Amino acid sequence: MKKTIITISRQFGSGGRTVGRLVAEKLGIPFYDKELVEQVALESGFAPQFVEEHGEHAPSKSLFAYAFAPQGVPGVMNGMSTADFLWNIQCSTILQLADAGSCVIVGRNADYILKDNPDAFHVYIHADIPYRADRIVRLYGESEKSPETRLNEKDKRRMRNYQHYTGRTWGAAENYDICLNTGKIGVEDAAQIIVNIINAAK
Amino acid sequence: MKKTIITISRQFGSGGRTVGRLVAEKLGIPFYDKELVEQVALESGFAPQFVEEHGEHAPSKSLFAYAFAPQGVPGVMNGMSTADFLWNIQCSTILQLADAGSCVIVGRNADYILKDNPDAFHVYIHADIPYRADRIVRLYGESEKSPETRLNEKDKRRMRNYQHYTGRTWGAAENYDICLNTGKIGVEDAAQIIVNIINAAK
Repeated sequence: MKKTIITISRQFGSGGRTVGRLVAEKLGIPFYDKELVEQVALESGFAPQFVEEHGEHAPSKSLFAYAFAPQGVPGVMNGMSTADFLWNIQCSTILQLADAGSCVIVGRNADYILKDNPDAFHVYIHADIPYRADRIVRLYGESEKSPETRLNEKDKRRMRNYQHYTGRTWGAAENYDICLNTGKIGVEDAAQIIVNIINAAK
Repeated sequence: MKKTIITISRQFGSGGRTVGRLVAEKLGIPFYDKELVEQVALESGFAPQFVEEHGEHAPSKSLFAYAFAPQGVPGVMNGMSTADFLWNIQCSTILQLADAGSCVIVGRNADYILKDNPDAFHVYIHADIPYRADRIVRLYGESEKSPETRLNEKDKRRMRNYQHYTGRTWGAAENYDICLNTGKIGVEDAAQIIVNIINAAK
């Protein structure tokens, strides 16, 4: 049977991760998000929290960018910056996961890494600022920064990381097979639309 | 009952016009494309063919940009360029159509003109170059230029016109409620997905 590889890119707070989890549940296939991060971390020797924090951010220009070689794997970075090393490990992990069988992969520029995979279906989830601001406060609580500032900062980091490593424009519709505004369509319905498309193609 | 206004923006050759026609048929609401152009032409005094050719192109920088005032309506352009005059007429026509009742409007930057309309649902239809090249040759026949050149020229004109009049990025997912790759999903299924979303929201 043909494999189903679904990549989900998303604006922070849009519910993209939940859409991905629902799609994976409905299709009965593995879901990789934090799980993927842990696997990357295991392979690289980085702490999972470090990978989660840096895996989708712009590469650091600080003097320390080369300083934090993973513990226990001395010399493996071959002169690469921490961010570049991480990018390489993420690429090979994602290619291996897609090769192993059907799955849903959220974030980590998987849309670009799997752009030439004929079994891949690429999704982008977004929503307007008020919807996302309300959602992150409900899910992650208040913080010192306004929800709008938090959204803005995280969106910018994802955008810079994406543009740096892929050379493509973040959020350009032509990079995806479907883009959905969860603020208008809803998270549940967005997941069902994706599931219906995948089932119709089988 | 709540109105349903669907705007469809599309890459040339992606089947966006057909998607719009199917959606309008399935929902039993008016469909505006060439019909809209004719209405604009009637109001402006321009020939329908002139409106169709210039209504989605970048504003001309030539010396003749101000030269062709519509016949029979002398003095109505108030010093505006032909392109700007046409843009103003298109804006007011589209606002009037959306005000009058449910409808599907294809092209003419209607997504931007109706961006604040709470009843509007904004769609972007796209597909990769090989799919669109094959489609335009089947639909419109061969020409002296390669299909790829024709696609490239038309896409660029729509993009420039859109960016000039809206200040937004053409094809950015966040401008739309749904973006669909007809090369992957198919024209019929794309139409059905939109109809299902509209019916679920009623």
